[in-house]
Amino acid sequence: MPIVNTKSIEDKRKTGIRFIDCDIHNEVPSNEVLKQYLPTRWKNYMDMVGLRGYHGFVQNIPYPKGNPGGTRADAWLPNGQIPGSDLKFMQEQLLDPLNMEIGILNCLYRVGEQLNDEYGAALARAVNDWQMAEWLDKEPRLRASIVIPYENADLAVEEINRRASHPGFVQVLFMPRTREPMGRRKYWKIFEAAENHGLPIAIHFGGLGGNAITSSGFPSFYIEDHTDMAQAFQCQVISMVCEGVFERFSNLQTVMLEGGFAWVPSLMWRLDKHWKRLREEVPFLKRKPSEYIRGHMRFTTQPIEEPPVQDYLLQVIDHLGSDDMLMFATDYPHWDYDAPDHTFRGKFPETLKQKIFYENARSLYRFPEKE
Amino acid sequence: MPIVNTKSIEDKRKTGIRFIDCDIHNEVPSNEVLKQYLPTRWKNYMDMVGLRGYHGFVQNIPYPKGNPGGTRADAWLPNGQIPGSDLKFMQEQLLDPLNMEIGILNCLYRVGEQLNDEYGAALARAVNDWQMAEWLDKEPRLRASIVIPYENADLAVEEINRRASHPGFVQVLFMPRTREPMGRRKYWKIFEAAENHGLPIAIHFGGLGGNAITSSGFPSFYIEDHTDMAQAFQCQVISMVCEGVFERFSNLQTVMLEGGFAWVPSLMWRLDKHWKRLREEVPFLKRKPSEYIRGHMRFTTQPIEEPPVQDYLLQVIDHLGSDDMLMFATDYPHWDYDAPDHTFRGKFPETLKQKIFYENARSLYRFPEKE
Repeated sequence: MPIVNTKSIEDKRKTGIRFIDCDIHNEVPSNEVLKQYLPTRWKNYMDMVGLRGYHGFVQNIPYPKGNPGGTRADAWLPNGQIPGSDLKFMQEQLLDPLNMEIGILNCLYRVGEQLNDEYGAALARAVNDWQMAEWLDKEPRLRASIVIPYENADLAVEEINRRASHPGFVQVLFMPRTREPMGRRKYWKIFEAAENHGLPIAIHFGGLGGNAITSSGFPSFYIEDHTDMAQAFQCQVISMVCEGVFERFSNLQTVMLEGGFAWVPSLMWRLDKHWKRLREEVPFLKRKPSEYIRGHMRFTTQPIEEPPVQDYLLQVIDHLGSDDMLMFATDYPHWDYDAPDHTFRGKFPETLKQKIFYENARSLYRFPEKE
Repeated sequence: MPIVNTKSIEDKRKTGIRFIDCDIHNEVPSNEVLKQYLPTRWKNYMDMVGLRGYHGFVQNIPYPKGNPGGTRADAWLPNGQIPGSDLKFMQEQLLDPLNMEIGILNCLYRVGEQLNDEYGAALARAVNDWQMAEWLDKEPRLRASIVIPYENADLAVEEINRRASHPGFVQVLFMPRTREPMGRRKYWKIFEAAENHGLPIAIHFGGLGGNAITSSGFPSFYIEDHTDMAQAFQCQVISMVCEGVFERFSNLQTVMLEGGFAWVPSLMWRLDKHWKRLREEVPFLKRKPSEYIRGHMRFTTQPIEEPPVQDYLLQVIDHLGSDDMLMFATDYPHWDYDAPDHTFRGKFPETLKQKIFYENARSLYRFPEKE
């Protein structure tokens, strides 16, 4: 597990590299904290049911200590509080040493997966209010994703409309394991609302919509789950493109968080080839699938694929056909955190680094240019 | 849909390129033909039930005319018989014009997916007997896969043992949408039998094990299904490696048919990276995941990914870290057939072409070297 290497960060500063971190996780420290933002009905419901998702089981707060899907050992607070749950600690461990200009919070509290739609909507309101009060209004370097009950488009749109005007919220958050492929019409109202507010749709590793992660059911090991997650993203890329989402919502942008990117070229080639022969099935597509991907999809770097020869990554970026598509992310405070000096270890052109570490995100989120 | 371009094939002959086609489909022409190879009990069962797979519905013979998942329009016989069902027609349309030295038949009759295990086993016996009588014993250029009821390992092993001694059978056939990820122990007896007989495990596009093809359920369009199938293969690669199949069966080889290959490097990089940090979960793996993939997995070329710049494919082959892993296939007589002149349109080194068109398959299947 790489940790922040202060020396190399100082080296980076000399080169003038600036950072926007597109994937930081703020964690609700406990259900007790969240209850302060919930009305009585849902406070009582939380005490009775906890969380209950598409597995049907009652589940408690995510990321228990020691969870292998969890967190950096050094990110636990001295008082035992869970990683990512304290602003001051995050400032000291991440924002200050990396001299981060902007960091985007993606809170993974499982609001989007609640079988009880109304409860999911109440949790979304509570988490977003907590994000405003405890994070955005206290730290100007931070931005956040609006969390939504994404399996119910009407309730999700209500929450987007309620919070989109706060300048700290810069996108709308999904997880890739949705109930249906994301291009399907049940999600279109959400895309419409996001587009109307100029907010990208972000999709972050995880989720559970009731289906196994593979087309052959559940794999035995966590290492498989984590590797298979790339396929969960691939299906969503294919679905959103093939359903014509970007013809219908031509200003919509999407951000794929923690799914990797080295698989994107081969997917574009396969899909373009099939489209040439099967385009009659999707006549509303006016352009090649790869053009929608290049024009409407961004991918964050963490966990960056690590080829044995670093130049291969440069070739893969070449294969993407655009150097606008990649954006830097650390995934702080999770176990597979990528430090900036880890992300590009080979000889990467400085202009490309600057685009990936900073400029591509600045441009997508329309953050003002500073000197 | 590319068709055979005789002129360019003649050009290929001049360059001395030799062909082994690793994926040809022979089709059972009708249930009436198959019934000649079935005992009375199962003949009657076929009349009553037809085929019944992991969707639970009664299903009839695959590839009805006009099926978009189907066949080349020019491969239908003049008498209306389904493509791939007649040896003479296949000789005239494929083997002779391409001057094919060896072609491997993968019969996709759905024996592996029958919910009734005993019926699946009876169908496997019938299909393999039909393959011997109608194809292998009549045409020395052809080889075939043993079809098996792969969801029941005991019955599958019986069938492998029954037919492995026939020199025309060169591998054992699965489809990637199995009931469980293929690395799991329920399939190990099959791997053991295949290894004992020196037969690779082939996995061909298709199948249905009861799970949706994506982790978000069923996609709307066939173009998605066809593109998502690459992910079905990816999960199997990950599962077989992570479960230690190639530690347990160190002489076992596998062949991935019609799943593409340009995604393999990025999968190796992601999996190797996770293994470095999570290897305690799979302590029986003695080597990096990518080493098992390179040592035990082969991928056929059709449908070959088609990048906008042909040199990218050469770079991808470079990223594989081995030029032994790819083998040529046409997928005759299906709609997305790749002619040899279509497979490598750019400037490919002749030695690499010779390996992919011929030598890698010759070596894997231990076909004797001819002058």
